[in-house]
Amino acid sequence: MNREQLIENIRKKRSFLCVGLDTDVKKIPAHLLQEEDPIFAFNRALIDATAPYCIAYKPNLAFYESMGTKGWTAFEKTISYLREKYPEQFIIADAKRGDIGNTSAMYARTFFEEMDVDAVTVAPYMGEDSVTPFLGYDGKWVILLALTSNKGSHDFQLLTSEESGESLYKTVLKKSQMWGNANQMMYVVGATQGRAFEEVRRIVPDHFLLVPGIGAQGGSLEEVCRYGMNKSCGLIVNSSRAILYADSSERFAEVAAQKAHEVQQQMEIELNKYGI
Amino acid sequence: MNREQLIENIRKKRSFLCVGLDTDVKKIPAHLLQEEDPIFAFNRALIDATAPYCIAYKPNLAFYESMGTKGWTAFEKTISYLREKYPEQFIIADAKRGDIGNTSAMYARTFFEEMDVDAVTVAPYMGEDSVTPFLGYDGKWVILLALTSNKGSHDFQLLTSEESGESLYKTVLKKSQMWGNANQMMYVVGATQGRAFEEVRRIVPDHFLLVPGIGAQGGSLEEVCRYGMNKSCGLIVNSSRAILYADSSERFAEVAAQKAHEVQQQMEIELNKYGI
Repeated sequence: MNREQLIENIRKKRSFLCVGLDTDVKKIPAHLLQEEDPIFAFNRALIDATAPYCIAYKPNLAFYESMGTKGWTAFEKTISYLREKYPEQFIIADAKRGDIGNTSAMYARTFFEEMDVDAVTVAPYMGEDSVTPFLGYDGKWVILLALTSNKGSHDFQLLTSEESGESLYKTVLKKSQMWGNANQMMYVVGATQGRAFEEVRRIVPDHFLLVPGIGAQGGSLEEVCRYGMNKSCGLIVNSSRAILYADSSERFAEVAAQKAHEVQQQMEIELNKYGI
Repeated sequence: MNREQLIENIRKKRSFLCVGLDTDVKKIPAHLLQEEDPIFAFNRALIDATAPYCIAYKPNLAFYESMGTKGWTAFEKTISYLREKYPEQFIIADAKRGDIGNTSAMYARTFFEEMDVDAVTVAPYMGEDSVTPFLGYDGKWVILLALTSNKGSHDFQLLTSEESGESLYKTVLKKSQMWGNANQMMYVVGATQGRAFEEVRRIVPDHFLLVPGIGAQGGSLEEVCRYGMNKSCGLIVNSSRAILYADSSERFAEVAAQKAHEVQQQMEIELNKYGI
């Protein structure tokens, strides 16, 4: 999916919500465990319920890998289901991969050719040749970790480098702009980082930001919009646990839809506020 | 596997070779493609041929993921085969994972409980809570990326931080020592980094280092040993392509064994040289 299509979807659906499919077999409603593929059954119901309110889905690979081949099958089925039934949804494989060139090329092939997702999250530590193999696919995206939502983000991402006088995450933002442009790269910036969004926007005014950390992690949507929104919205805000596990009864999908709808309504207010 | 067992294996086998199982279906000998599971057939033959000369195997997850459920099955079968037939081999899942705490915990569960590998490579960018969930398993190891073997290692790993006056990779080495000790952590330091091993050893004199980059990537075993070896050896040196794809005929396993044997003989010279 290209940038224009993504922006068009946001304008049309009045939402920039991404639902994070962190599907944990230990947390899904008990009645689904009788299904042949409980993970896929959960995802399908969840997707059908929330699709009107979001523009993206983000399966987190860790949750699927933890179940071995069964999990991998559920992941593949989820992607196929989205592709067939909801082709307008932007699909992010939250994988945080990154390796030497020939290995990153294998990961890129997996996610973009085999799986046909729209975007993959990539970790920047190994530098240019660990990222560029993901950039060779038309209409596909790298979402590079910049300033993450967790406590450990302070350990290295905020270290100031002598060479530039800036934090590591800013060096990542700047340097990576030489590898790809705003039509093929986005950045992860955690909702818990507050006013750091101002700093981020000084460096990458046009790029989309993938924003985890509202909901269970405590970030504020309003604050993210105040400091992070640009004239094309430029934000994809993720919520996982707060939507997925809002209810554990047979009504789980209905309650998830309510939660997603509530977030969408807040997002609509923000989009209106900034004239988008 | 604990540290003492690993050191004992190195002393006994006169080798600190790790064979990297970067098994690519496009590169394996053509006659194996008739097998039901060509990837596993290749790995099994390769392992049987090289096991006398190495102390570790390192399947690179990218290569298995790129084949979806089939690849994942081949990976699982490879681990089981190693566990049953070669229980003295140290198994490293080269995954370069790292995510927020609850997600890293899922990855840790996958690799240490489901797969029962000995070690996982982990990327440090997201900091403490992305690493520590991997440290809660007795006899299991985190191998943290420090100074990698690729060209892109210069992009961020060598940036000097104002706070410490040291390169990022040194800050990673220092800070991570507060999270775990030499009985549960190792570090990736690329063979292509030459004298940087001296610097590394000043900070982590006792830790094992996982060293990729000899062979196809051009690093020198002798140099790595001169600057990186400690009194318990402290090195696990990986070779992948130079062993796996040394021959593409039906004799591939035999030739791989020869290549592994040659490396083992060089390693024996180094171990003798340093009185280990």
